Amino acid sequence: MFLTFEGIDFCGKSTQIDLLEKYLLNKNKKVLVIREPGGTEISEKIRRMLLDKENSKMFMETEFLLFSASRSQLVREKIQPYLEREFYVISDRFHDSSSAYQGYGRGISPDVISSINNLAIGKSVPDITFFIDIPVDVAEQRRQQSSIDNLDRIENSNEDFFYRVREGYLKLAEREKRFKVVNGTENVEVIHKIIINEIEKFEER
Amino acid sequence: MFLTFEGIDFCGKSTQIDLLEKYLLNKNKKVLVIREPGGTEISEKIRRMLLDKENSKMFMETEFLLFSASRSQLVREKIQPYLEREFYVISDRFHDSSSAYQGYGRGISPDVISSINNLAIGKSVPDITFFIDIPVDVAEQRRQQSSIDNLDRIENSNEDFFYRVREGYLKLAEREKRFKVVNGTENVEVIHKIIINEIEKFEER
Repeated sequence: MFLTFEGIDFCGKSTQIDLLEKYLLNKNKKVLVIREPGGTEISEKIRRMLLDKENSKMFMETEFLLFSASRSQLVREKIQPYLEREFYVISDRFHDSSSAYQGYGRGISPDVISSINNLAIGKSVPDITFFIDIPVDVAEQRRQQSSIDNLDRIENSNEDFFYRVREGYLKLAEREKRFKVVNGTENVEVIHKIIINEIEKFEER
Repeated sequence: MFLTFEGIDFCGKSTQIDLLEKYLLNKNKKVLVIREPGGTEISEKIRRMLLDKENSKMFMETEFLLFSASRSQLVREKIQPYLEREFYVISDRFHDSSSAYQGYGRGISPDVISSINNLAIGKSVPDITFFIDIPVDVAEQRRQQSSIDNLDRIENSNEDFFYRVREGYLKLAEREKRFKVVNGTENVEVIHKIIINEIEKFEER
């Protein structure tokens, strides 16, 4: 089963992925957790380029192509082989992040995004995509309360950008059946139960 | 004016680019010579990943996306600004290399290639593309006679691959008016004159 988690930063994806991983391992399931961009030797090299603040002259087209290259390698080197071995593969971000960030956020046309996404992911379409939704100002508050003040190149974008990204996710969620929108301002345990419930519903089909 | 040189390795592209650069500089023209992949700080980092033999697990889709990312940055950071300043921009390989190598050579579909090429190059379509054509066995002889025995990741491909690449170039040349096919087994000076002649014809239009 292939599960992806999406949302703007500070929405609580990582916490939920940790809880889900523990839950599945407790049930003796085989689990692989990956985060994007990265997850293979080649993809980690690309990740460093993408997040390096020294690469401030990077154009949005280059950014998108690098994300896609990293994803393409991750899919073929890890995701596909692990799915074939019946692992639960959980990815922190996947191709919907490109649609939301590089498409809705930066303005690359949807047709171009989807044709490049298709090349990058091949057959590996997620079974369920959890979009953990929080308003941009909640993300901003959480960011200020966090101890993280060394933001990477993409987190450094302005607030307008994150409004467009969130709107983009909501539009994707309307269009794609595999999307489950989860209210990220809810209690952590409540969200965790919603997620488990969705996975069980999917497996009962 | 934007000129690109294409062909399989050992076809003599670099020699011709050197001669053309000297010729244009002698005529007091402003000239920028670039080679792909590379040519900007970000693109050179990508170049190192592409040619590094340690990255032997790189899938063809990843390879193509990395070439395109490098090209996208080169176009926006260098080629467009220099063309606007009325330079002769000469590129050793450009997007046709992706059509020939990743498309015809490795088998990525033409539609995907052209949609990603379009994103990568934007408005920067070459004015003339010189395809320096040599048979694959001539390339092989020249390779053996050269002192280069430390081949990079892509030069290491098998001979069949280079047959497909050459055929691919010939098909592109039939389709695209900007292509000029030059017989690369001719004498170096003869080829140089053919190239200058084509450039002058273009400028007289």
